[in-house]
Amino acid sequence: MNPEDGDTSRKMAIVVSEDSFDKAMMPMILATTGATMGMEVHVFFTFFGLNLLKKDADPKLKGLYRLFTGMFKKRMKKVGVDDFQAQRELAIEMGANLYACSTTMNMMELSESQMVDGITVLGAAAFLDIAAESEIQLFIG
Amino acid sequence: MNPEDGDTSRKMAIVVSEDSFDKAMMPMILATTGATMGMEVHVFFTFFGLNLLKKDADPKLKGLYRLFTGMFKKRMKKVGVDDFQAQRELAIEMGANLYACSTTMNMMELSESQMVDGITVLGAAAFLDIAAESEIQLFIG
Amino acid sequence: MNPEDGDTSRKMAIVVSEDSFDKAMMPMILATTGATMGMEVHVFFTFFGLNLLKKDADPKLKGLYRLFTGMFKKRMKKVGVDDFQAQRELAIEMGANLYACSTTMNMMELSESQMVDGITVLGAAAFLDIAAESEIQLFIG
Repeated sequence: MNPEDGDTSRKMAIVVSEDSFDKAMMPMILATTGATMGMEVHVFFTFFGLNLLKKDADPKLKGLYRLFTGMFKKRMKKVGVDDFQAQRELAIEMGANLYACSTTMNMMELSESQMVDGITVLGAAAFLDIAAESEIQLFIG
Repeated sequence: MNPEDGDTSRKMAIVVSEDSFDKAMMPMILATTGATMGMEVHVFFTFFGLNLLKKDADPKLKGLYRLFTGMFKKRMKKVGVDDFQAQRELAIEMGANLYACSTTMNMMELSESQMVDGITVLGAAAFLDIAAESEIQLFIG
Repeated sequence: MNPEDGDTSRKMAIVVSEDSFDKAMMPMILATTGATMGMEVHVFFTFFGLNLLKKDADPKLKGLYRLFTGMFKKRMKKVGVDDFQAQRELAIEMGANLYACSTTMNMMELSESQMVDGITVLGAAAFLDIAAESEIQLFIG
């Protein structure tokens, strides 16, 4: 579907604060779905969520479920859901805005060179301005 | 309270992505509270959250807290909060819309016959359309 | 910054349902950021989140990460982020509304005297009314 065909005035703002497999996949599926529907998509990665913007991010399920991550990936592939890295790339290609929380960047002593291309470093205040103008706000954490 | 007395134009959209006792109870309490206030309620169960729509769902607290689930249930009953299965039934009776994520259904190879009666299978795009029109959106995960 | 200089018509409604260090810090950072921007801020503490309003609250990271809480606090201090107790006090001073869920208070048999000064006990229905009028709603759990 061509995003131009959709309602481009609708905005979706998502915060991601965890880095487990499930909390990584859901915002990417929502972001690509929203972009397909013509929404303007904004995803803000903070705290542990920031790890998901690292070039080599490969999220796993939490705790004891870690070992089942591969099985989940296979099942997802079977029903046509790409893996995290592909979804993230697709989201960026579709124009979704992925933001790295500037405070977390400083706190974790991370540099932009460690992050995937096409993202933007942003502060919490700037994100709240975006969220306040969005029809949808979701905190995935 | 009669829902007709309330403001029926207000909508609440909730996503549930976990299946622990606390993450099960909160959307049901919010759903029945919202319905009582006359809100149009929409709750979308995805990922692990989908387990909560199974007929035999009996959520427990996470990890080591699992053993304290019974104590929590007793304390809830004492202050007049019904258990999960009763709350879920009440929510459906009050007209709250409970949705099973279609992608998760396929991924987990679950069929509608395993789910409680009165729910609807829905895709993420259709849910985002509902969320964009809702005054309240909450991601409980 | 003087809140009067900002846009006082914007409202932010946050639910907090966990009591880990990260889930404690994020709503306080968002609350003080929002208040600085002139937003009307409402934070509702429920379930485990209610522990964060206790006078002696000192949240830790979850599970095995518990031991790294001190390291996180040091890193935060280094980039200018106050600890939880200071952030909570600041949020209240700036006029953010912190609410204790009345049902959780009853369930946990907690009294207002155990809670920090300056908070309000509130029911879920009253909070949903506030959330429905808010530009931003986030469930941090």
